[in-house]
Amino acid sequence: MIGPKVVITDPTEIAPWVSDWRGRVHGSSPAMLAPSSTEEVVEIVRLAAEHRVPLVPQGGNTGMAAGATPPADGSAILLSMRRMNRIRSVSAENRLAVAEAGVILATLHDAAHEVGMRFPLTLGARGSCTIGGLTSTNAGGTQVLKFGTMRALVAGVEAVLPDGSVHDGLSGLKKDNRGYSLDQLLIGAEGTLGVVTAIALRLVPAIAAREVAWTGVEDPAKALELLRFLEARTSSIEGFELVPQDSLDLVLKHIPNSRSPLSGKHQWHALVEATTADPHVDIAAELERLLAAALQQGIISDAVLAANETQADAFWKLRDSISEAERAEGQTLAHDISVPVADMPAFILDAAAKVEAAFPGVIASGFGHLGDGNIHFHVRAGSHAAPDWYGSEGEKVTRMVDDLVTAAGGSISAEHGIGQLKRAEFARLAPPGRIHALRAIKHALDPLGIMNPGKLIP
Amino acid sequence: MIGPKVVITDPTEIAPWVSDWRGRVHGSSPAMLAPSSTEEVVEIVRLAAEHRVPLVPQGGNTGMAAGATPPADGSAILLSMRRMNRIRSVSAENRLAVAEAGVILATLHDAAHEVGMRFPLTLGARGSCTIGGLTSTNAGGTQVLKFGTMRALVAGVEAVLPDGSVHDGLSGLKKDNRGYSLDQLLIGAEGTLGVVTAIALRLVPAIAAREVAWTGVEDPAKALELLRFLEARTSSIEGFELVPQDSLDLVLKHIPNSRSPLSGKHQWHALVEATTADPHVDIAAELERLLAAALQQGIISDAVLAANETQADAFWKLRDSISEAERAEGQTLAHDISVPVADMPAFILDAAAKVEAAFPGVIASGFGHLGDGNIHFHVRAGSHAAPDWYGSEGEKVTRMVDDLVTAAGGSISAEHGIGQLKRAEFARLAPPGRIHALRAIKHALDPLGIMNPGKLIP
Repeated sequence: MIGPKVVITDPTEIAPWVSDWRGRVHGSSPAMLAPSSTEEVVEIVRLAAEHRVPLVPQGGNTGMAAGATPPADGSAILLSMRRMNRIRSVSAENRLAVAEAGVILATLHDAAHEVGMRFPLTLGARGSCTIGGLTSTNAGGTQVLKFGTMRALVAGVEAVLPDGSVHDGLSGLKKDNRGYSLDQLLIGAEGTLGVVTAIALRLVPAIAAREVAWTGVEDPAKALELLRFLEARTSSIEGFELVPQDSLDLVLKHIPNSRSPLSGKHQWHALVEATTADPHVDIAAELERLLAAALQQGIISDAVLAANETQADAFWKLRDSISEAERAEGQTLAHDISVPVADMPAFILDAAAKVEAAFPGVIASGFGHLGDGNIHFHVRAGSHAAPDWYGSEGEKVTRMVDDLVTAAGGSISAEHGIGQLKRAEFARLAPPGRIHALRAIKHALDPLGIMNPGKLIP
Repeated sequence: MIGPKVVITDPTEIAPWVSDWRGRVHGSSPAMLAPSSTEEVVEIVRLAAEHRVPLVPQGGNTGMAAGATPPADGSAILLSMRRMNRIRSVSAENRLAVAEAGVILATLHDAAHEVGMRFPLTLGARGSCTIGGLTSTNAGGTQVLKFGTMRALVAGVEAVLPDGSVHDGLSGLKKDNRGYSLDQLLIGAEGTLGVVTAIALRLVPAIAAREVAWTGVEDPAKALELLRFLEARTSSIEGFELVPQDSLDLVLKHIPNSRSPLSGKHQWHALVEATTADPHVDIAAELERLLAAALQQGIISDAVLAANETQADAFWKLRDSISEAERAEGQTLAHDISVPVADMPAFILDAAAKVEAAFPGVIASGFGHLGDGNIHFHVRAGSHAAPDWYGSEGEKVTRMVDDLVTAAGGSISAEHGIGQLKRAEFARLAPPGRIHALRAIKHALDPLGIMNPGKLIP
């Protein structure tokens, strides 16, 4: 039975959750359901099926593609998973945690830390995003280089399927070959195939020490060369972020108390994070030795190691503040794209040059997860742009970027998903066979179309 | 167009491929098709759909569940993928290889080695199993502990779907969130959703050095304690195999030139393999130091490091010869099962005691991939068994083992798949919701039922 507090109809309580957090998509919902158990979700899904009322599952509402925003016509009901927020178990022995969908990422980080372990995925929204949302969008973040996306870190999923049955994949078996992986099918499905209610997550040993360095490099190719140089000599690299000087300048301009780590100017920078779980390893000495060798071999132009944790955090803050600084500067179009890793250095330069030539006045640049072949390719309107540049030019710019990405064999959505915002471009660029297969799977598991309609599937 | 040599109808050429290699299941096929390109596979699938003739994709025919053996009534055509045996690319820079489905695993190992890299998955059939088969069965093997199963090592799949469209997932993007992962759906699908024609595979840096040790332990719990002890102190452990004294005795008895690594008797043994890609790391000294500490702490009773590669191979051969030695000893029932890792030590002892009590005279023991929660739980008939013990008692024993595994939240097929041989047990033990979901997906993508009918789906 559904508990008395599950149904919320007060519009003021619902209001914060029917628009996406960036305020770009506004939806509407006559009610918000907030179950606190899997049984309540089963009941809700059965009622939804019976009455043919679609559900829009939602976690922390921190998504980048409006995948958890209900349609504007009020035809769907918001299904908030935030009250399902228990951590059911954390085991250092099994290297597993089982968290309900509504658990906040930072809460999981803390729980793992308490048993001497670590859940290695992290990202900017860690204080408000939920494990369910991260799973349903196959989230990435800054530590993917070493640990992979959610797809690699989820050991199993509990979900209520559209027919009301419960898929229980929480046993966390490392090997299980009993047919198609429903776990993997639900990861990244954006709530269109069922409601993820709990997730078994792989833990890794806690960090004993970390060292963060900031390096100056000539171009993205040198940055990738540095990464390969480091990876060939140590297994401790887990963060590697590319930052153009242009982006750093914006951060220094707009973000209070920010300082450039290196004294000279460099066209490009790479932030390097090395960690170890072994207290006997002197990670700072190792990174220093390796960066000195890279400097001597001409791979990098300069480097500085963070003197302490505060400085390490300050280096990361420079990287994490790029989007905020860009917004302060003016209109910006963000593209979360990937191409094969080895092709990325050339792609960044080439795509930026082409976009700047096609749209005079704009500034295009790529930053982020170079080692994953994933960068955030941002196009800024420039100081002379019209106030409605975003509305008038945005779609054209995005189409050009997406065409370049597709021609390079890449993905127009590396880590943010399709949601509502990328659905048209996905439909335009995906092979017909793929669209057919996705639609067939969707219809097979959700024949009534009650699971997050209007999302993901073109 | 299908090339002239694609169609093989000579029964003597077909004969070796219509029975599974263990000779337990005998099928029949009027013809064997042997395409050498994806285009030819497309043509074959279109013809199969047009004429409603099912196809049975087959690689090296080394499977353990008869998943590539055609039905006995000759109603399906064997689709041999062995002529699609090109390695399309190997890139140290991208850490990727693209191999066609028919490439032999050992050939891929060599190709990766030539560029200073390594494809880390390996198993006994490496000289004849194919990458397509390994992918379609989500194969595991002995290095899963560190590198995972094929599901973790496949970066993408090219496959001909039942409608004749080609799914091209070969770009090897590390991040790609464009809807449901068809790659992951095809991994482990045993050819029931399409024909895997090529696979992008993750490579890791080549091994600079390895060290193999043989240890004696009191019981499986101590073995797992040893593994956790090592993993907390080094990231170099990539092989960890549990061997009971009873299995070792059989190997010493039946396998020529085999010697016990340790002088004393131990109830249980653990083979440990440590590797490093860093030529500066003295892996032997590290493992020796750690094992000495484990000895001092009473985790292990004894240990010996392989003095050289020959001895290291000899240690591995003891482990790899268990099944052969068991067959030489008499009738054996093999079960490839998994339970949560932390529960495995107790499960092994408990399940063996229960099976031996229920079937007086049999000898039950578990060996293998303890760190993956996956052991091969073998039940031997014992010396007084009737010659038809396997036929008369086998099913009852297996049902008991499968019931124990299911009660422990485990899998009745950890790495071998369902194929034909485990289909009845899968149907008996899987939750109805799961069976419904698998059938729905199968029907959605293969509405005509032309892809490997009679396999996997209950």
